[in-house]
Amino acid sequence: MSSETNNKYVPGLEGIIGAQTAISMVDGANGRLVYQGYVIADLAEEMSFEEVAYLLWDGRLPNRSELDELSEELAASRELTEAATKSLDALPTDTDPMDVLRSIVSVQGVQHRLAKPTRPLAIHATASFPTILATFHRRQLGLPPLQPRSNLGHAANYLYMMNGEEASPDIVQALNTYLVLLADHGMNASTFTARVIASTESDLTSSLVGAIGALKGPAHGGAPSAVIEQLELIGAAPDPETWMRDARKRGVRFMGFGHRIYRVYDPRAKILKAMCERMNPSFYALASKVEEIALTILHEEHPERPQSTNVEFYSAGVLQAIGLPKEFFSPTFAASRVAGWSAHVLEQTAHNRIIRPQSEYIGPEPRKPVPLAERG
Amino acid sequence: MSSETNNKYVPGLEGIIGAQTAISMVDGANGRLVYQGYVIADLAEEMSFEEVAYLLWDGRLPNRSELDELSEELAASRELTEAATKSLDALPTDTDPMDVLRSIVSVQGVQHRLAKPTRPLAIHATASFPTILATFHRRQLGLPPLQPRSNLGHAANYLYMMNGEEASPDIVQALNTYLVLLADHGMNASTFTARVIASTESDLTSSLVGAIGALKGPAHGGAPSAVIEQLELIGAAPDPETWMRDARKRGVRFMGFGHRIYRVYDPRAKILKAMCERMNPSFYALASKVEEIALTILHEEHPERPQSTNVEFYSAGVLQAIGLPKEFFSPTFAASRVAGWSAHVLEQTAHNRIIRPQSEYIGPEPRKPVPLAERG
Repeated sequence: MSSETNNKYVPGLEGIIGAQTAISMVDGANGRLVYQGYVIADLAEEMSFEEVAYLLWDGRLPNRSELDELSEELAASRELTEAATKSLDALPTDTDPMDVLRSIVSVQGVQHRLAKPTRPLAIHATASFPTILATFHRRQLGLPPLQPRSNLGHAANYLYMMNGEEASPDIVQALNTYLVLLADHGMNASTFTARVIASTESDLTSSLVGAIGALKGPAHGGAPSAVIEQLELIGAAPDPETWMRDARKRGVRFMGFGHRIYRVYDPRAKILKAMCERMNPSFYALASKVEEIALTILHEEHPERPQSTNVEFYSAGVLQAIGLPKEFFSPTFAASRVAGWSAHVLEQTAHNRIIRPQSEYIGPEPRKPVPLAERG
Repeated sequence: MSSETNNKYVPGLEGIIGAQTAISMVDGANGRLVYQGYVIADLAEEMSFEEVAYLLWDGRLPNRSELDELSEELAASRELTEAATKSLDALPTDTDPMDVLRSIVSVQGVQHRLAKPTRPLAIHATASFPTILATFHRRQLGLPPLQPRSNLGHAANYLYMMNGEEASPDIVQALNTYLVLLADHGMNASTFTARVIASTESDLTSSLVGAIGALKGPAHGGAPSAVIEQLELIGAAPDPETWMRDARKRGVRFMGFGHRIYRVYDPRAKILKAMCERMNPSFYALASKVEEIALTILHEEHPERPQSTNVEFYSAGVLQAIGLPKEFFSPTFAASRVAGWSAHVLEQTAHNRIIRPQSEYIGPEPRKPVPLAERG
């Protein structure tokens, strides 16, 4: 009824520009994801996560000595504070690892109070995610935490701390590619959350904690383990297509499908699909069949909608092949995206204006309250 | 350069409608704040915080038995979980209470995992804020925590747990009025944060933790203690006006002034100003003089801008008179606003669509990366 604007309400802010950014571009029409002027296909299997984090934070690729310096800084920042360690130990062992991350990133950050977001703080935060996750995972297994290994890269150290042994180069490379592919993706709900929080001149930790909370939602990043769970159900059924058509009649959502942007195949899903075929043939055999049936059914229902396999569908197979437990799929997504979130917070801070949209009031017109004693 | 929309970028989303809501309306032209159809002036000194929380969550005022039931549910939900208690004990005693709140609300919420937001969860969360703050405050003082008192209302119990003794009825009433006045305010950055997070189908805890992070920013709710600090500086100077004019020349921001919306005096500031005059005469004597000088200077600088005393200016004097330490001003704001945040999350959940604006890419055009060995 009343708002201080002549604009019309657009649900979900679809098509509204929430920010200008040099960090990444999702070119949905051409199926391209671009980080600071480089297409993802040129980065994914060529560069380390550290190199791409440098690119996102600094706007250009590092030379050898710059890359070495960043890698050392990340490696030197992997320890948790005493408060973070104790809080992690206080959490029940059946806590959702996304809630572990949300809570312990918050505790780890209290030392920085209301510090203005900076690149060193981005390094500190990014370095801590794998330690938090691996320490909690070891605790779930009843095992003591492992010290981070400063002679291992970001992906290799994460796997070492999770598993207690060094992973093979192939597996490290696969996780590295996954971390590069998921590190940023234009304006999505968690990145937008991080920028809104940063826009109040709050600190990096607050932005990251909010972003983790947004990524946890099944409509954003909370679905990759659900892909595995649904595939297990389909795989156990006598006929996949029958199960899937029945499921749709019951209103079941196909996990790993649907996004707003790509008109052609998601370039990240394409790379992950090829990795899946190579690394996880049993997953691939079922998943590629399910994908075909899902796309057929979805096309029958909505012929006007574009192809819709999303990044989570084949992520699940890759992360399974890497050996991560499925409850750690979403948190590993967060351990990648923290690079992008931090970059967006730095960018927002450099050109800040508080992000504060209006609301449109649709409640009752003002009237006098009835006193409590007279209410029926 | 590229975005999938024809809309123009509006910095800060100013004037863009981010949500439709029945919860509150900020009528800036007429200086009215409306909660579910009731103007704030009719609620502030007449109703309890519990009554207003009912109004925000349920869309109507409760009758006596409904109010009693909600009050009992709130009183029964004040205890912290074992994990929350242990995490709170792990935090350094010099932690910013806003960071305490962000962290311990997160830990307290892990028991609910990815539960869909509901009214009982809103009650649980709202009830926990005072316990978290008071337990931490007692710890800072080296005192053992106090058990919540179920025979005290929300405001009275908060003061009891902070101070170890029951506050006088006048002081309880003043805190209650403050909690009612600050409980909601249309679409602001923290409420918007809570709704963006909820829109991904994440849980209430994640929304509240993100909102606390946004409220922490000095451009949003992080400034009330800064009002006191600036007034102390001005009060210590030989002449207030000289200090203030010099400060402006150095680019100092006047704390407690400036907002986007009200064209006339903020209706909450008006009520708080009267309370301040009554409860805190020494604060009022200086503050009202500083307000007059600040408005004069700001008007000289920008005659086109409206009157701009914001809610934080006289909040500081009221909270000081209530006896809260200044580091607890922002967290007490949060302990009020949690009612509004929860209401917005419930509303968002009931009519959900993921909030996901576009971004406009302003980075370089895609080009091939130079291999690491060849970079200068």
